[in-house]
Amino acid sequence: MPETRRFILFAEDRLGPLSSKTANGLIRYRPKEVLAVIDSTKAGKTVGTVLGYGGDIPILASVETGLKLKPDVMVIGIAPIGGGFSEAWRPAVNRALEAGLKVWSGLHYFLSTDPEFSSHSEQIWDLRKPPSGLKVAQGNWTRRKSKILLTIGSDSNIGKMTTALELQTQLAARGIETIFIGTGQTGIAIAERGVGVDAVVSDFVNGAVEAEIDKVDGQVPLILVEGQGAVTHPGYSGVTLGLIHGCMPDYFVLAHQPTRLVDDYNHPLPSLSFVRDLHETLVSPFKTARVLGVNMYSKGMTLDEIAPALAGLRRNLKLPAEDMVRQPTGAVADAVALTLKRDLRV
Amino acid sequence: MPETRRFILFAEDRLGPLSSKTANGLIRYRPKEVLAVIDSTKAGKTVGTVLGYGGDIPILASVETGLKLKPDVMVIGIAPIGGGFSEAWRPAVNRALEAGLKVWSGLHYFLSTDPEFSSHSEQIWDLRKPPSGLKVAQGNWTRRKSKILLTIGSDSNIGKMTTALELQTQLAARGIETIFIGTGQTGIAIAERGVGVDAVVSDFVNGAVEAEIDKVDGQVPLILVEGQGAVTHPGYSGVTLGLIHGCMPDYFVLAHQPTRLVDDYNHPLPSLSFVRDLHETLVSPFKTARVLGVNMYSKGMTLDEIAPALAGLRRNLKLPAEDMVRQPTGAVADAVALTLKRDLRV
Repeated sequence: MPETRRFILFAEDRLGPLSSKTANGLIRYRPKEVLAVIDSTKAGKTVGTVLGYGGDIPILASVETGLKLKPDVMVIGIAPIGGGFSEAWRPAVNRALEAGLKVWSGLHYFLSTDPEFSSHSEQIWDLRKPPSGLKVAQGNWTRRKSKILLTIGSDSNIGKMTTALELQTQLAARGIETIFIGTGQTGIAIAERGVGVDAVVSDFVNGAVEAEIDKVDGQVPLILVEGQGAVTHPGYSGVTLGLIHGCMPDYFVLAHQPTRLVDDYNHPLPSLSFVRDLHETLVSPFKTARVLGVNMYSKGMTLDEIAPALAGLRRNLKLPAEDMVRQPTGAVADAVALTLKRDLRV
Repeated sequence: MPETRRFILFAEDRLGPLSSKTANGLIRYRPKEVLAVIDSTKAGKTVGTVLGYGGDIPILASVETGLKLKPDVMVIGIAPIGGGFSEAWRPAVNRALEAGLKVWSGLHYFLSTDPEFSSHSEQIWDLRKPPSGLKVAQGNWTRRKSKILLTIGSDSNIGKMTTALELQTQLAARGIETIFIGTGQTGIAIAERGVGVDAVVSDFVNGAVEAEIDKVDGQVPLILVEGQGAVTHPGYSGVTLGLIHGCMPDYFVLAHQPTRLVDDYNHPLPSLSFVRDLHETLVSPFKTARVLGVNMYSKGMTLDEIAPALAGLRRNLKLPAEDMVRQPTGAVADAVALTLKRDLRV
């Protein structure tokens, strides 16, 4: 587990369900450590009233006000399209650095190399910056002690990080310790562990993932890896397959949104059984990897529509399926726990 | 077609079948433009006696001697493991730049950013350097006018570039004009066109390939794209799938070496029918892409062994198969030409 932090989350003018993804991830998965969110346009409200979760976490007007709460990390919680840095944020970042805070940023623009911030570079963690010394994959999966579960999706941006983190909690409740490896900026911020695979030079994607797994292999029975993109996504499929073969997973859990019918290019999404079979096939030359369950993302559905949709998925795929966020049942975690216990006994 | 060049190829101490891959590619595919190879350890010999092809191209002791032939480009023809620059080559590169030559390099180390060479950066082409302004794939394949053929392999380093270039010649002999797009340093040097996909940040691989195709779409009925890696190669699969979906090919031609039984990790290679089916499946959510034939790389076989091995491939896959280098028959080009004519008539 990462050490306990005292976070303030910088989301100026952008705190919202879609516009402050990294802030929202920390609010959901490390709520006790979030002291406040900075967004002057919503100052005085609570996070709960803006996001629907996050309860009484206050929204403050400035970094200066936030400093009174004695934070130790300020996280840039917003990710504008293109991942650039807004000059309007410069005074806030400077104030946090001067006050001795660590600053974490998931932007594509690396704050640690900004001329004005670089004298504080030891306080800055650019979450997306690839580690140095990356290598091509070495084939270490054949010697692995832990089992590996990778979350995958029928499309990008469909809940693969959420699936892995919810599974982690559910498995912990069943006495199964896991380590979560982040592969995007939000997952990395939450776990303080991982590698931003989409920013890695393509030759080294498989190897970068393998190296992250190698660091913790054997420490727990099961390592959970956050998926990225989709192997059937025409824009990001390369990242996704590099991640799959870098992991060489034993298990997949599949995130799927029944109400999403087309991809980012307005092309119909493939059938879910095709997606499941393709993932198992891609790993089959090396080992057996099975999809163990489905986490349904019920965006656009009423509560009444969830149960019939899940029944349809179960019938279609012959797999446990649940909505881990709105109606968690633990069915997928049960399947994972059962399979893990059986496989580790062999 | 690229303009006519007067090349000298720098391969100091390294001219050989395996150690001077980029030089060898130019010797094979642009032989009339290669004035000389520089390798002081073999000076006085001809390229033909060292490589088995390249005929009377002389091997010279120094760049100085080569300059007398009035070259206009010096190509760094060697690629040491890791792609680094050897300080021993510095005087040669300096001499070529001072003499006004262009210098092309496929090293991972970019000569154009070397402090000593950067004042000549306009003369330098770092073949592997990703173009600026890369984007994620835009989905432009749905509007393409040309058909796309991508060469693929049952493993990496198995003749995918050779397959595409031999096909180009054979199709030209059948009256079919094509454009070849390189995706590695040697293919890019030969065609003076392409993008080194393994050096591109993973998020942009699909888009980088799409952008290269967009530049020439519609100029010829068929665009040939050099494959990289293998979709079943645990180290490079991400690069390969990015390339596949960046291309959205209509046709594949598969390079295969029957005597190669294991991959770089000593793991058994999958069956060739698995490899063929997997490629067709990966594109199937978007369009129909078919493997049209096999180019057999007969390394390790005697001439007598080629025909029975090809017969085995034909029986197994129900596809035309030939050895395009040692015993070209044109069977694969015939199949491509036939399919192309049928598809374009539709």
